[in-house]
Amino acid sequence: MDTDRFARLTAADLVQLRRICGDDYIVTAGDDLKIYGSDETEDLNFLPEVIVKPRTTEQVAAIMSHCHERHLPVTPRGGGTGLSGGALPVFGGVCLSVEKMNKIVEVDTDNLMVVVQPGVVTQTLQEKVEEVGLFYPPDPASRGSCFIGGNLAENSGGPRALKYGVTKDYVLGLTAVLPTGEVITPGGKLLKNVSGYNLAQLLVGSEGTLAVITEIILKLIPNPQYRKTLLVPFDDLEAAAVALTKIFFARITPCAAEFMERSAIKAAENKFEKSYPHSDAAAQLLLEVDGNDLEQLDSQCETIAEVCVECGAIDVFVADSPQRQNEIWEMRRGVGEAVKSICPYKEEDTVVPRAELPKLVKLIREISARHGITTISYGHAGDGNIHVNILKKDLSDDEWDNRLPEVITELFTQVVALGGTISGEHGIGWVQKRYLPLAVGPAELALMRKLKELFDPHGILNPGKLIPDE
Amino acid sequence: MDTDRFARLTAADLVQLRRICGDDYIVTAGDDLKIYGSDETEDLNFLPEVIVKPRTTEQVAAIMSHCHERHLPVTPRGGGTGLSGGALPVFGGVCLSVEKMNKIVEVDTDNLMVVVQPGVVTQTLQEKVEEVGLFYPPDPASRGSCFIGGNLAENSGGPRALKYGVTKDYVLGLTAVLPTGEVITPGGKLLKNVSGYNLAQLLVGSEGTLAVITEIILKLIPNPQYRKTLLVPFDDLEAAAVALTKIFFARITPCAAEFMERSAIKAAENKFEKSYPHSDAAAQLLLEVDGNDLEQLDSQCETIAEVCVECGAIDVFVADSPQRQNEIWEMRRGVGEAVKSICPYKEEDTVVPRAELPKLVKLIREISARHGITTISYGHAGDGNIHVNILKKDLSDDEWDNRLPEVITELFTQVVALGGTISGEHGIGWVQKRYLPLAVGPAELALMRKLKELFDPHGILNPGKLIPDE
Repeated sequence: MDTDRFARLTAADLVQLRRICGDDYIVTAGDDLKIYGSDETEDLNFLPEVIVKPRTTEQVAAIMSHCHERHLPVTPRGGGTGLSGGALPVFGGVCLSVEKMNKIVEVDTDNLMVVVQPGVVTQTLQEKVEEVGLFYPPDPASRGSCFIGGNLAENSGGPRALKYGVTKDYVLGLTAVLPTGEVITPGGKLLKNVSGYNLAQLLVGSEGTLAVITEIILKLIPNPQYRKTLLVPFDDLEAAAVALTKIFFARITPCAAEFMERSAIKAAENKFEKSYPHSDAAAQLLLEVDGNDLEQLDSQCETIAEVCVECGAIDVFVADSPQRQNEIWEMRRGVGEAVKSICPYKEEDTVVPRAELPKLVKLIREISARHGITTISYGHAGDGNIHVNILKKDLSDDEWDNRLPEVITELFTQVVALGGTISGEHGIGWVQKRYLPLAVGPAELALMRKLKELFDPHGILNPGKLIPDE
Repeated sequence: MDTDRFARLTAADLVQLRRICGDDYIVTAGDDLKIYGSDETEDLNFLPEVIVKPRTTEQVAAIMSHCHERHLPVTPRGGGTGLSGGALPVFGGVCLSVEKMNKIVEVDTDNLMVVVQPGVVTQTLQEKVEEVGLFYPPDPASRGSCFIGGNLAENSGGPRALKYGVTKDYVLGLTAVLPTGEVITPGGKLLKNVSGYNLAQLLVGSEGTLAVITEIILKLIPNPQYRKTLLVPFDDLEAAAVALTKIFFARITPCAAEFMERSAIKAAENKFEKSYPHSDAAAQLLLEVDGNDLEQLDSQCETIAEVCVECGAIDVFVADSPQRQNEIWEMRRGVGEAVKSICPYKEEDTVVPRAELPKLVKLIREISARHGITTISYGHAGDGNIHVNILKKDLSDDEWDNRLPEVITELFTQVVALGGTISGEHGIGWVQKRYLPLAVGPAELALMRKLKELFDPHGILNPGKLIPDE
């Protein structure tokens, strides 16, 4: 990497950043530098030289304008829950935290939209709009601490993507600051818009490399009044995957269809000192349906149960009460943390066409066996998105360092051969960029590189991310 | 416009194009040149020098590669139903018609997706997937003759956008040929994907100026089994708009909420020599609900009727039978043609936040009165998208030419002031590009200009469209 292109932060820069943000919104020393040097990606840490916490679009524009002129690297930061290292300040420089831009500007019940700043916690946003009977569906597992701005950067999904789509499907308009400090406002409170290129959609999922998003207009939908949750153990992984496909054939679109293999559930049992029913089953499906018609939901649950039993389910638990539903979801949401607490790990965010899921599950097992490594898989079966955690366990550091790139390359190569790709919702960021050429052809990659240069001629915004090194 | 940048088509170019496409797929003379020189935009006509009809992605790539090298203008063409002149070969040169790329490659019932070539007629696609109980919702009024490729170019919407979203919400993957002849394949059969910049979404709505789309992967959903259609006359335009907002408050999301003012319905009556009930009412709402639960639909119809009557509806007709529903929709779909057959016209595709609809309706009337012109409005009230047809009537050619730009500028300026924009689903194309700076700020416009240059360094693909002249 060409680090020479960046200037070093000087005392004069700090004076200017202080002038822009105010003394109380700048951190240059102390534990925070370490904290802001990590996200949830493995044990990586890169110290920023300064943390700035702007409160307005104008302040962000002034920061970017200064850093553009001075060739200073700027790493935007949301809730710090990212899993691909997108918020790591790998070149030091400025960490631009949006934590003080945390207002819900307007819940627009006339238009069924909400206007928010990027530092709003996703769950806070969801609860706020639920108060008036509205619904913002995307729900990453980290929704209690991740920021909506980070969700846009990574185009976050979560379990409900299956029925309700991902973050991009709700983004109607943005205010965003370009790396040069210019402000753009693509889109608006509009359900239809074809007035020029769709810059809003280009920014969603661009992992904070093209612009800093400072305000967001999101579409909302009416909140479904009822939900029913089913937990279905299978003693065969592939049978679980087949059952899932058949549920769709029965004209049912669940609002969640999650998959956990035995070792994932065992990890959650150990971590949280709980015991879950049928936790010895090879795999469990967590299925949920929602809607406004209770009878219809009951009938959907019956159909799902029938399909699952036909496909070899051991049992079917239906959770009607919010309390039982929460318990099941807490287990599911806790799986990631539980698996990651076992030992050093590397997490891959594979995604394939849904119908290829049985093959994906099979090839993960084969690759693990062949390379003598341990993997634990879980995730969003309904949209073919499986998180594969590769565990270090009792491998030596050398074995781990040697085998890991081979295992990942093989996994990704086979995933791409199934029509899949290397990240469904975690992003490419810092830790996956070397693998991007496995999924994206040379013409497309060249275009992405040129797009980055077009938006960011000095390459200062979130440098070292998404685009592979040349 | 800088026309000097283009080469003139030579005999050697024709030899090369014949070699690529085959003799039967090239037209250089005859009436077709005139036919392919127009779309549905006013009475505009620009003759292409040659029409090519490639059958494969490879042929499109070879054509683009040749034209890029030779600096020959290429205008891609779908069904020729566009309303902003996107398919007009304004610099002559090559008309690239995708009409021979008209295969439905695969209806993938396992993944609920369809793979199509760009020359498939939208309605043909819809009927094909309905055979297996699936649903492709976007339905522009021209669905019987427009191509799905053109729908992607313009990010088409139609009545159902309200509940089901627009074309972009169904596009998962593309094969596309860049102006240089390089082929990219962004996206795939994937419901989640954050592996690099979202080039597929950037191409949707780019009006054929960034790439020629040669294959498309679309998401499908289960086909709702039942639908109910309501026709509701009001004797006050604004009351109709208020009723619409209140329907959403009642937790109902219609799958269509169309608006037609009296003169639009009268035009349809004259054109098709039919009489429609309550055609003297100031405005009519056409509302539709769909789903799989007949009782629920009945209850929704009752609620809608109550809300409308409370808001001052004169009457409420419920159409249960497919035959009655088709009659109502034929009237609605025929309105555009009927209005345009009256006299020379200019159609504007205004869109505002839904709640601003009453203000939009009011300002259209005020502007018409102030400038002494006739307008007829109709369109997709549920998503704030109203088509305003400005009629020449008995204005002299001079009066028409002088007043029109003033009227349009004032209309668009006020639409933008309401938080709206200048095109919801027709695109900017040839006829609206001078107005784009009213809706899009200078930094954003500069970015669009640079994006176009990045994709198309010689500016050969659909030249003269979308980007305003400098």
